[in-house]
Amino acid sequence: MSPQGQAPACVVLLSGGLDSAVCLAAARAEGRLAHALSFDYGQRHRHELRAAARVAESLGASSWRTLSLDLRAIGGSALTADIEVPKNRPEAPAEIPVTYVPARNLVFLSLAAGLAEVLEAGEVYIGVNAVDYSGYPDCRPEFIGSFERTVALATRAGVQGAGLRVRCPLASLSKARIIELGITLGVDFSLTRSCYDPVGDLACGACDSCRIRARGFAEAGVPDPTRYAGRPPDS
Amino acid sequence: MSPQGQAPACVVLLSGGLDSAVCLAAARAEGRLAHALSFDYGQRHRHELRAAARVAESLGASSWRTLSLDLRAIGGSALTADIEVPKNRPEAPAEIPVTYVPARNLVFLSLAAGLAEVLEAGEVYIGVNAVDYSGYPDCRPEFIGSFERTVALATRAGVQGAGLRVRCPLASLSKARIIELGITLGVDFSLTRSCYDPVGDLACGACDSCRIRARGFAEAGVPDPTRYAGRPPDS
Repeated sequence: MSPQGQAPACVVLLSGGLDSAVCLAAARAEGRLAHALSFDYGQRHRHELRAAARVAESLGASSWRTLSLDLRAIGGSALTADIEVPKNRPEAPAEIPVTYVPARNLVFLSLAAGLAEVLEAGEVYIGVNAVDYSGYPDCRPEFIGSFERTVALATRAGVQGAGLRVRCPLASLSKARIIELGITLGVDFSLTRSCYDPVGDLACGACDSCRIRARGFAEAGVPDPTRYAGRPPDS
Repeated sequence: MSPQGQAPACVVLLSGGLDSAVCLAAARAEGRLAHALSFDYGQRHRHELRAAARVAESLGASSWRTLSLDLRAIGGSALTADIEVPKNRPEAPAEIPVTYVPARNLVFLSLAAGLAEVLEAGEVYIGVNAVDYSGYPDCRPEFIGSFERTVALATRAGVQGAGLRVRCPLASLSKARIIELGITLGVDFSLTRSCYDPVGDLACGACDSCRIRARGFAEAGVPDPTRYAGRPPDS
């Protein structure tokens, strides 16, 4: 509890996917008043925003807002530009995938830092994890630490106050462990959406995100509640 | 010249104000192909975007784009929320002014880093300067250096390539020296707009930005081309 007797506030980056839902649940379980922040950034899988609204409500977020920013003006990613989302590609690729959005987590965390300052929240929660940072540079712990140091120099809260802590409760967890944690914390995974290239509200079953998610449910021994357009991914 | 015989490319943050116009002129004078980037972030002084287009064209930018992001979802500043822009306030205030936009330069530089990566540009130019960083934390050199280190960990260009350099050609210059440099580099200051609270296309003459700008012209001994709604600021 804060000196005012109120639970400490945080901002949670909430995409509507599986990881960020568990991240929000973890923040709530740690006693935080959680302000959820989603982005409408021109992503082709915008169905995740409707999922984010449902997830925020079901997990008792104090507020939920969507910030519009048009990353299509930058392009360079299969998630925002006219580049095909890869399907059924080999495991553990050495390259950064084309679904990488240039500087996305840096941009999202920067905006979360701005919101945290306005809300006088000392923490931002982000659901980066072990599986993702094998491919995306901006999911790695060394990036998160450097970002905290930069934000301490960038903001009024950093200069005059206690600064901002970036919390990554899923950082060291595999997808299966994240799912198990979510079950323990009462996350309803049927509300979440992970697919990069959905057909209406149905998951494609073939993009990296669908396949990693399906394998996570299989490894955790938890029934996969995802509704697929075609046949579920092999796992 | 780069190994391919083409001038090196950079991204220039271009608000349409006086400083960023001189910053773009400096990048051009240093032999860069300059891609100008402006933001429509819900600022009340959106007249600066029309100015940015004129400035980009007049200084030979290779491209100009506006990225929309709605910082009103965050609020917390007189420039984006329903807070009054201070007029005729005392000099050299100790406090960070209410026109500070939480984490703005961090957000803008992060988006510029994403665009630089897509354009394979190794530099971002930003017009932060001595007068501004007396008040805004995210205009200080220590912030810029920390940002460079963070972006090196955040992006594909940082991990696989040469990373990103943030260039601040105005960092150590007073407003008067910036104006003199701009005159030398052929900047047409009548195209630029600085006012935080304009009346149509006319400057208010009383906000911090108008007063710092007018004093700069007076100190440089350069006629002020700004068109004011009322009487020009005392200088």
